[in-house]
This record gives sequence, C-alpha cells and structure tokens, in this order.
Amino acid sequence: MREPIVGHLDPFFFEVNQQIARLLRLCFGTANEFTMVISGTGSAGMETAVANFVEPGAKVGIFANGYFSDRLTEMATRHGAQVVRFEKPWGRIYTDAEAREFILRERPAVVAFVQAETSTGAYQPGHAIGAAAREVGAVTIMDCVTSLGGMPVLVDEAGIDVAYSGTQKALGCPPGLAPITVSPRGVEWLRARQTKPVSWYLDLKLLLDYYESAHRYHHTAPISMFYALREALAVIEEEGLEARWERHRRNHELFVEGLRGLGMEMLVAEGERLWTLNTPRVPEGVNDLEVRKHLMAAHGIEIAGGLGPLAGQVFRIGTMGYGSTEENVRLLLAALKEAMGR
Amino acid sequence: MREPIVGHLDPFFFEVNQQIARLLRLCFGTANEFTMVISGTGSAGMETAVANFVEPGAKVGIFANGYFSDRLTEMATRHGAQVVRFEKPWGRIYTDAEAREFILRERPAVVAFVQAETSTGAYQPGHAIGAAAREVGAVTIMDCVTSLGGMPVLVDEAGIDVAYSGTQKALGCPPGLAPITVSPRGVEWLRARQTKPVSWYLDLKLLLDYYESAHRYHHTAPISMFYALREALAVIEEEGLEARWERHRRNHELFVEGLRGLGMEMLVAEGERLWTLNTPRVPEGVNDLEVRKHLMAAHGIEIAGGLGPLAGQVFRIGTMGYGSTEENVRLLLAALKEAMGR
Repeated sequence: MREPIVGHLDPFFFEVNQQIARLLRLCFGTANEFTMVISGTGSAGMETAVANFVEPGAKVGIFANGYFSDRLTEMATRHGAQVVRFEKPWGRIYTDAEAREFILRERPAVVAFVQAETSTGAYQPGHAIGAAAREVGAVTIMDCVTSLGGMPVLVDEAGIDVAYSGTQKALGCPPGLAPITVSPRGVEWLRARQTKPVSWYLDLKLLLDYYESAHRYHHTAPISMFYALREALAVIEEEGLEARWERHRRNHELFVEGLRGLGMEMLVAEGERLWTLNTPRVPEGVNDLEVRKHLMAAHGIEIAGGLGPLAGQVFRIGTMGYGSTEENVRLLLAALKEAMGR
Repeated sequence: MREPIVGHLDPFFFEVNQQIARLLRLCFGTANEFTMVISGTGSAGMETAVANFVEPGAKVGIFANGYFSDRLTEMATRHGAQVVRFEKPWGRIYTDAEAREFILRERPAVVAFVQAETSTGAYQPGHAIGAAAREVGAVTIMDCVTSLGGMPVLVDEAGIDVAYSGTQKALGCPPGLAPITVSPRGVEWLRARQTKPVSWYLDLKLLLDYYESAHRYHHTAPISMFYALREALAVIEEEGLEARWERHRRNHELFVEGLRGLGMEMLVAEGERLWTLNTPRVPEGVNDLEVRKHLMAAHGIEIAGGLGPLAGQVFRIGTMGYGSTEENVRLLLAALKEAMGR
C-alpha cells in the first residue's frame, strides 16, 4: 500500500488490475474473462450482484439459512424483487435434491445463496444449485466472502454466474475491495438488460468500460488497495492455492479435534463445515461474553459471538489466511480451555 | 496505512472515526454532528447523497455547468427523480439572482450543485443556492470533491444540507473514502423519510447505527484507509486550515500569472476560479495531447485534458494538497513553456 499512487487512468494501474484479475480467476476457479474488483468492501460486492442482476419485479429465489442470506433478501427487496425464500435453521445446508426441487418448483429469474455463511460456519458447495438454476434459465449469485482463498470455491465447476467476495477474510488482505466474477452467460444477460441499474457507482457495464479496452473514466479507484490485493494474491500463488486449502483444512480439523477434547460440540455437521470459520456451541454453564472478553484481555485474541438466533449459542472463531497455523490453533485451544475454566 | 488492522467493531476503530469526524467538520466548515465517511471513493459520496435524499418521483433542480452536474443528473434520474436543469456553458457559474430565480420558479424538493467543478475549474460558493433552497424547503446537495481541504467550503455559512467529497484531492490522501456531512435539518428529513433507499450499502440511517452509539454491525469498513485519512487530516490541522487555503490561493495566483506570461488565457473568469484546479485554454496551434505526453515523458508531470465539450480546448492542471508549492508551480511553468515551444 506504500507504493506511489498513480492516476486512475495510468497504464500501470490497468496492468496491476490485469494481474489481480488473473490471480482472482485462480482463486474463484474460473476462466471468466469478466473478473474484477468493486471499489467498496464485501457488502458492496453483494450489492453489485443484486443491483445488476435483479430487475424490479424479478422473482428471486433465496436459500435462507443465515445472516447473509437475510441481507441478500433485504437488498433484493429494496431492488424491487419478488423474493421467495427456502428457509432452513441456521447452520444447516441444503441437499442436492432439496435445492433442485425448490428451484424447479419456483422457477425464479435469479437464484442466490451463500457458499460460506460467516454467521453459522456452514459450507454449501453450490453445484446442485448452479445446475438446477441453469435448467430453469436462472442467473445464480453466490456469496463466497469467507471461502475465497481458503477453500474450494469452484465457480465454473459449480456453474455459478455471479460470485463475489471481500478481501479481508481468507485472502489475507486489508478490507476495502470486493472481488467479483461473472460468467459469459451472466455477461450476455447483462448486455441484454433493458433497464439501467439504480446504482451508477456499482453499474458493471460502466465498470467494464473503465477497466477493459475503452478505459472510459468512471470513478477514481482506491489504488493503494489494489496494490495490497495484488500482493495478497501473489502470496497465495506462491503458497499454491491447493496447498493453501489443505493448510486451512488441516488446521480446521486440528481445531475441531481440540474443541471436542474440551467437551465442545460443533453447530455444523461434519463435512458441511467451513475450514475458515468454526462455530462450536457455547457449553452449558459457560458465559459466552465473559469468555470472549477474557480472551481479548488476557491473550489479545478476538473471537466473535453468535448473530441473530445464535446469539449466546455459539462462538465464531476464524482460522483463515495467514492466521491459519498449527501454532495459532494450539494457542487458541489453550486460551479457550483457561477462559472456560476447564 | 501500515498500522495493524483492528476489527470493524473495535473501540479503537470508533475512536479513530471520531477523530476523523472532528477534523472533517473543520474542513467542511460545519458543526454538523452527522459527519462521517462512506466506504467508497468520491463518486460513492455522490451516490450516497442522491440515494438517501432523492425519493422516486421527487423534483430535483440541478445547476448544470459541467461533467459532475451531468453525473448528478444521471444518478438522480436512475433514482426516479424528475430532474429540472439550469444549463450554463461549462466554466461559467451562477449569479445569486439567477440561482434564486431558478429555485423559486421550480420549487424543487432537492437542489444539487457542484461547488468545485473538476471538469471546468469553476467555483460556485453556494450561499445563494443554499439560502433560496431553504426558502422553498428544499434539501441542498453540494459536491465539494475538489474544494475540501484546499479552499473555503463553508457548509454551515452557505446553508448546505448535504455535502460530500473524496479524499484524494486537496485532502492529500489516497483515494478510497468519501467524506460526507449532513445538517440537522437533513437528518430530520432523513428520519422522516418513509421509503428505504434502494441502496443498502449506502443507507445513511444504517451507517449512523453503525458509527454512532449503537455500533450495530453494517459492513466491514476499510480500516487502513481510515488510518490514512486521519493522518492526512492531522497534517491539515497542523498546517492550519486557513493557512492551507492561503497557500492554495497564492500558488494558484502565481500559476495563473505565469500562464498569462506564456500567452495562455483562463477558461474561467477571475474570482470564479478554483485554487486547486486550473483550466488554461489550449493556445491556437498547440496540440493538447502532445503537450501532455511530453510533460509526462520528459518530466513525469501528469496534467489532464478537457472533458466533454472542453476536450482539446483546455488543460486541467491540479495545484492541490502537498502538490501546491511555489517550487512545483515554477517547475510546471518551465516545463509547459518548453512543451509548447514558447
């Protein structure tokens, strides 16, 4: 971020942008030409997906099993969508058959789901959703804020049209940008769209004109953040994406094993868990807030509490990016043990 | 920007945010409690103003004398406004009588204008606009992207309800945030608004809940950019805001005098010019693009060309922030002289 700042139309900036796009394609698991970053944080990525692909009156099918699918619902509603929700208790995911049945029954124009639900720790790979959405001609939007760079996202394999993320989770970069990728099918849809999105700042057609061939001035991009993201992605390429996934998986499993040793149950079933964010239930008789305060005060370790229906019920503990190490996991387990008096 | 990143709900972050708000009030010339930054660049500030204060169907009066008032028109239109424009040739400003006549005749719900028009170099103080808008009960939106930190903005004195800016102009900070301030009258209007803005990311009521007392999670703010802005504002306080204005004025005048010596005319009339951005006309027989290319190649100096109707007609030359020095002005004049072969 300390590199000298160049103009927002400087060829060097577009070169940096191309390097970012190449490395993001790697992380997203996509060959999508249309891969870029939005000049805002992860939630701006979500709003970009909704603002561009949800037209007023469109039917939007949302897989509703956590805080961020509720946010998708709120944004789609604000954009005039007719939202139909497939509700599940927080922490659960959808089977392939359930996903397909919902999509074929509702036949929405847009399907949206959260691959990595930061509020619950659940992981929904998305292949069945992507496939069923294509069957009915729907555009699929996937939130991968907490999976990108830490575990398989696999946009192309899952048949996803629009995926967005943030930089500050498993990419290990400061917050400030929202990576986004759009399939050729999504781009075609976008080009055919008759109405302008209400948002000018997040209008992907205008952003395409800016970042791609024409380089038509749109906004002044936060150049320093681009430098930061390029470096974070270079670190990922150096480690190797699959080696990075494996590191996240290994440390997550080590952590879960240790939690079990402390008598703690996981909210999410085995095989459906994020490797980046762990959600053990708060044991009977343990005060969630006190444990968190103690960890912060005595060890400088910040863990989060549950949101919404899970408030006081679970801890949310990140093991992501450069933070996902065996040493950190062991330190964390010892600190947790002490904090809970076990 | 290199300071360790804290969580988006960390008390330290809100402390930094309070420091930023205090210093922004100084630069804006306001006592507005509601002074904050938007997690996007200057254009996100513009969109925030429009998204929150322009309801579908509202009549919006726009003073249209440059590129950025056209952008305001585009954004207001996308938000469903009925836009009425008061057109002037680019580079001209409005007299007090003209401004008042327009507003009293049209009686719009919202009035929007650009105090510091980056495309033309013209400065519209805004007092007459603010006063007339209050007469008819309209909310006034002012763009001060290129004035904030470099010359008088005077939000309260001019009676402006909503003013926004960017960080990368006269504040001398990297791009990435959009400062915004809202008058108590604007806040009251906002609280009374019955519909939700289409944009969730830029919803000021939600942002207020996040930054102010409740600290209810909204989005993850780009923390590093907040550190950068705090430092840039501290530099301004150290120099003294009025001393800084005076420096900008002095170097601007020195530059204009030098341009005259090179036989160049200014697009904007004396007394109506920005001190931060200068727009000499391209002299007869001089090739705009060649001059700019030469300055960049031979001296590493980047100046901009005209936009829209002024393409090829003017240069746009910044003398702002730490760049506004006598030494830079003299260097620039010598390089320009050489580049134009005079």
